[in-house]
Amino acid sequence: MEPITLEQAIRRIGPVDAGARRRAEARQLRLTKPPGSLGRLEQVSVQLAGIFGTEKPRIQGKAVVVAAADHGVVAQGVTGYPQAVTGQMVQNFLAGGAAVSALSRLLGVRRIIVDAGVASGIRNHPDLRCLSAGHGTKDITQGPAMSSRQAERCLTAGVNLAVEAARSGADLIAVGDMGIGNTTAASAIAATVTGKSPRETTGKGTGRTPEELERKVEVVHRALAINRPDPGNPLDVLAKVGGFEIGVLAGVILGGSAMRRAVVLDGFISGAAALLAHRLCPATQDYMIASHRSDEQGHQAILTCLGLSPLLDLGMRLGEGSGALLAMPIIEAASTCLCEMATFDEAGVSDRDRNEAPAESPSP
Amino acid sequence: MEPITLEQAIRRIGPVDAGARRRAEARQLRLTKPPGSLGRLEQVSVQLAGIFGTEKPRIQGKAVVVAAADHGVVAQGVTGYPQAVTGQMVQNFLAGGAAVSALSRLLGVRRIIVDAGVASGIRNHPDLRCLSAGHGTKDITQGPAMSSRQAERCLTAGVNLAVEAARSGADLIAVGDMGIGNTTAASAIAATVTGKSPRETTGKGTGRTPEELERKVEVVHRALAINRPDPGNPLDVLAKVGGFEIGVLAGVILGGSAMRRAVVLDGFISGAAALLAHRLCPATQDYMIASHRSDEQGHQAILTCLGLSPLLDLGMRLGEGSGALLAMPIIEAASTCLCEMATFDEAGVSDRDRNEAPAESPSP
Repeated sequence: MEPITLEQAIRRIGPVDAGARRRAEARQLRLTKPPGSLGRLEQVSVQLAGIFGTEKPRIQGKAVVVAAADHGVVAQGVTGYPQAVTGQMVQNFLAGGAAVSALSRLLGVRRIIVDAGVASGIRNHPDLRCLSAGHGTKDITQGPAMSSRQAERCLTAGVNLAVEAARSGADLIAVGDMGIGNTTAASAIAATVTGKSPRETTGKGTGRTPEELERKVEVVHRALAINRPDPGNPLDVLAKVGGFEIGVLAGVILGGSAMRRAVVLDGFISGAAALLAHRLCPATQDYMIASHRSDEQGHQAILTCLGLSPLLDLGMRLGEGSGALLAMPIIEAASTCLCEMATFDEAGVSDRDRNEAPAESPSP
Repeated sequence: MEPITLEQAIRRIGPVDAGARRRAEARQLRLTKPPGSLGRLEQVSVQLAGIFGTEKPRIQGKAVVVAAADHGVVAQGVTGYPQAVTGQMVQNFLAGGAAVSALSRLLGVRRIIVDAGVASGIRNHPDLRCLSAGHGTKDITQGPAMSSRQAERCLTAGVNLAVEAARSGADLIAVGDMGIGNTTAASAIAATVTGKSPRETTGKGTGRTPEELERKVEVVHRALAINRPDPGNPLDVLAKVGGFEIGVLAGVILGGSAMRRAVVLDGFISGAAALLAHRLCPATQDYMIASHRSDEQGHQAILTCLGLSPLLDLGMRLGEGSGALLAMPIIEAASTCLCEMATFDEAGVSDRDRNEAPAESPSP
């Protein structure tokens, strides 16, 4: 298949199917349960109906795209782990020892691991895609993270990874990240797009002490002061203070939406990617499902800006798509209840305002 | 196998394995992730380690016991649905059309459906167990719900259902309920055991109007005034204001704990059963996992009394074990991460306080 361009993807993203949503809402009222008693599951099922364009939105396949890259800003001492860990963890993803490996095996989710620009070399592996936009971004306290050309290349690569995942059968596409230093980049993006101060969008990441957090807030301030990213221009924000993996994930969100698939966000980093995707194309919002509320300060500001309410709140802050993977069974459950439950009539169960059972349905 | 008695089950319930908990905690610190970054998953994994007595607590099988019964108190007009719905829904469970049917299929959970005392007759089915403690309880505004003998029979039946589930391979045992009128009984139990007022423990159930709720609060007051259940005697509470299915579920919780299995609570009704089990044997608390916070008023009071914090909060209020089933993949994920993730040493990943990677591990 020919790769598609960023512009083609954005043009393809249309509104979700309002008629299918209404039919799914009506069906929820006829299923054998008190109306609304499945809570958020009912809302998710109606969202899926709109995305897939059917009142019975089935989930046949699931994929997670985990993009990894390094960040020049680690030179400013903003992280708890050495930069080498990014590449080492990608090897760990591929060898099967990381959380994303264990969870994707458990839940039957296809993994697509992307070297979006890791500083160290990574051994070839059938599950690894090499984009190699660069060997880590430049230090954003000194100037832009990457060129506009690199930013666009990351977005386009992400779009086409989502297209590939969708064509190979994924109805749910989760996004995940790995990148020592990437909470600093995500904080800078979140501050720019949401208009909040770096203090509000910056959390501890893997740091531990209040001093580390202070340094990080100050680093984000400096990155914004020197680069002056334009909030109205998401490509500029990505190039000035972003990360290669964040660009790829924004592309995956756009590509997934263009393919009418549900995109499952993870935590803070994928939230920053979602802000960029949303600014590039506001209609992506209807295709996004927020999996969990990360423990990372600043994530709530992103969710609020996107108008999303997370399914889970388990105090997690790992990344790698771990939160998105955990939400997948909940989303599948929402789909399954809508598609497979019997209606009151089908099951011969008396509904609320009747005094007698309806005529018995044919025996199953 | 010989059935075991209630007293035998209670005697068998011992403390969880503190050594296995400590080893699991230590292992969590060596896994390739920042310490604590898997949040609640880490806590759940340590709890499972204590229950199963191993630092690698694997989950091989899952079961849900759904107990159904009718309630004489429906004569007081406390519900939104006619009594016939209890039996009709049990048929729906067995025919595969209910939420519990759809979710247990999706998640690979063995269903055990129990007629604990449904008023109408239910057709035989291989998945159905008939306890038939009676054709519904008596109206608790007029006197006790059942005799002490019936109460003990329900508990013992539940114990042996859990033993059967455990022996057939279930490491996680979920509890669920069906019973038109059972939120009224559960409110009366919760008020008695927690010491809260009926106003605080009574929610709308399937009712819709403020007037229906007022009537229900008043019905619970009358039930407590006429029966005066003894908070120090759980069997007395069950017999005076309980329900057959609530007794069975309390038995399942005791039996599961006796077999050293993790017991996954559902919402308000199974919470009332957990209060009774906990008063019969406080050590059961360490075997309980609270799956979700129900939308039913009064559930939080039960969770607080039991010292449990729920994994999910999805605005659900269906019963049938639906919330407990939804939490099972989260619990499995907790187990899988602890058991299957690589340590820093195994994966050759640099830990936080090192500057270089450890010697490379043998290639996988």
